[in-house]
Amino acid sequence: MSETPLSIGIDFGGTSVKFGVLYRSNIIDQSPAISTPDFDGPQALIEAMLRVIEDLRERHPAIAAIGVGVPGFVHFEKGIVHNLTNVPGWTSIPLKKHLADATKLPVVVENDANCMAYAEWKRGAGRGLDHLIALTLGTGVGGGVIANGQMVRGAQFGAGEVGQMSIDWQGRRGAYGNLGALEDYIGNNEIAADTRDTYLKAGIERHLAECTPAALAKAAMAGDEIALGIWDRIAAKLATGIMNCCWLLNPQAIIIGGGVAKAGDILFTPLTAHLYAQLSAPFKEHLMILPARFGNEAGMVGAAALALEEAGVVIQP
Amino acid sequence: MSETPLSIGIDFGGTSVKFGVLYRSNIIDQSPAISTPDFDGPQALIEAMLRVIEDLRERHPAIAAIGVGVPGFVHFEKGIVHNLTNVPGWTSIPLKKHLADATKLPVVVENDANCMAYAEWKRGAGRGLDHLIALTLGTGVGGGVIANGQMVRGAQFGAGEVGQMSIDWQGRRGAYGNLGALEDYIGNNEIAADTRDTYLKAGIERHLAECTPAALAKAAMAGDEIALGIWDRIAAKLATGIMNCCWLLNPQAIIIGGGVAKAGDILFTPLTAHLYAQLSAPFKEHLMILPARFGNEAGMVGAAALALEEAGVVIQP
Repeated sequence: MSETPLSIGIDFGGTSVKFGVLYRSNIIDQSPAISTPDFDGPQALIEAMLRVIEDLRERHPAIAAIGVGVPGFVHFEKGIVHNLTNVPGWTSIPLKKHLADATKLPVVVENDANCMAYAEWKRGAGRGLDHLIALTLGTGVGGGVIANGQMVRGAQFGAGEVGQMSIDWQGRRGAYGNLGALEDYIGNNEIAADTRDTYLKAGIERHLAECTPAALAKAAMAGDEIALGIWDRIAAKLATGIMNCCWLLNPQAIIIGGGVAKAGDILFTPLTAHLYAQLSAPFKEHLMILPARFGNEAGMVGAAALALEEAGVVIQP
Repeated sequence: MSETPLSIGIDFGGTSVKFGVLYRSNIIDQSPAISTPDFDGPQALIEAMLRVIEDLRERHPAIAAIGVGVPGFVHFEKGIVHNLTNVPGWTSIPLKKHLADATKLPVVVENDANCMAYAEWKRGAGRGLDHLIALTLGTGVGGGVIANGQMVRGAQFGAGEVGQMSIDWQGRRGAYGNLGALEDYIGNNEIAADTRDTYLKAGIERHLAECTPAALAKAAMAGDEIALGIWDRIAAKLATGIMNCCWLLNPQAIIIGGGVAKAGDILFTPLTAHLYAQLSAPFKEHLMILPARFGNEAGMVGAAALALEEAGVVIQP
């Protein structure tokens, strides 16, 4: 058994709740995910979570803290889940108290994009940096902000919503009334719709299912000019959102993860070009554009690492 | 003579260098401004500045620190002025060292928009807040960021450039190659040009000189529908820039100063409407949109207050 304390990271999603045990920067054990919609309300789901936690603690007695990343607004200090867009009934749930009372362990509950940012900052691509923005590109665009060597959560713990930032003051109206939200241009579904339309204009019919970012990346890598053009447009829009973060916060690094980032150089090369063309020297000379270290496990790693550090345990990664 | 320490705040501009003596939150004495272009290079200007400082210290022996706000990039820790757009020759000038060596006082040199933000945070509209963005609207649009109760300067001390943030990913190309920079839409000159064009479209010819933000505010206050429409468009654009800051940093307050802000409710009413229509509850429920307390003296107050606090003197305002 390890002498280094372990922690549990829980990635609470609309589809499933996933559990991992973190040792340093690695998930060394996982429990089978439980299906979020199978449970009738928060109480039943919390009880199921507690059973998994108990099981993991029997296998790993060194577990010293629990972190949960949730897809929505959390009062970080109180550990109260305000609202989860995709999980009915999760309004004003004191998740931290429920878990801490039952387990007698220190618990943190944090927004999932902040967990991803925390994972990259403390254990991933951004280790040792004091100023960074982490982005995750998927169905939505999420993010987290580190400034002055601290996580920036803001007045109501809402900071980091890069996907809601506007790239067009007269653009489409988004989920919160906001015009031109970045996420409404480069989310998975928007990329797919844009791809289908672009091929259609060129006289080529494609099903939406053939227009995923993964398919689009494959086409671009094979030299398809239309696909390369679409990636250039995605890159230009994303560069605008990132540029806005840079002018405002002058970070050392932008760390980019999530499914869309799997396109690799197909995205990163035009992105860097568009971004560097729109920043002055002090903002770009030392700026790093880095792919995220963690993939699907980012939420678990971040929640688990945060839990341990909030509990006062410092791990040398 | 006061027992509370005083400090000198210097507002270094492209046209003039202004000197004020700060007592608590008030400028209690000022020296006549010196004309920046009258001096042949940094050395001569620094010597002139030192003569004014010496004179002020004779009148106020309690002066304990000196702060300088400059219109450009500064290495805040080293006090080196990297580059001033409107003042030739000011490249890589160790201004802090020059002033500190000659006066034997603690000196800080800071970007002027950061000084304005600091003044509002420590002595003005934002006192006691931990998360705020301060904006100054004039020929350019500048800003400063406070998060987690700290000034955010970023990796190269460039943070806070709200005016360079894009509101249109396909917009006009700005000074740094950036497309759609906010400042290129709502700077004084852009407002004037837009105003002239809008009246012209309505069949009314106006000289540019009659199209200043001040004249436009007067017309709007008199009920001129065209003028009100222009202010609504200015407010919509500014709201986009501010909204982007809010989604990213979730501040408690936005503090707005500078000449354009003198329009008062003519600007603030539509601005608040556009902004609140584009933010979700946690971002707007407790958000304050505040006019700046300080006007032209903001830079002096901020530089002087910052100098004293960096020197370890805490003033209860």
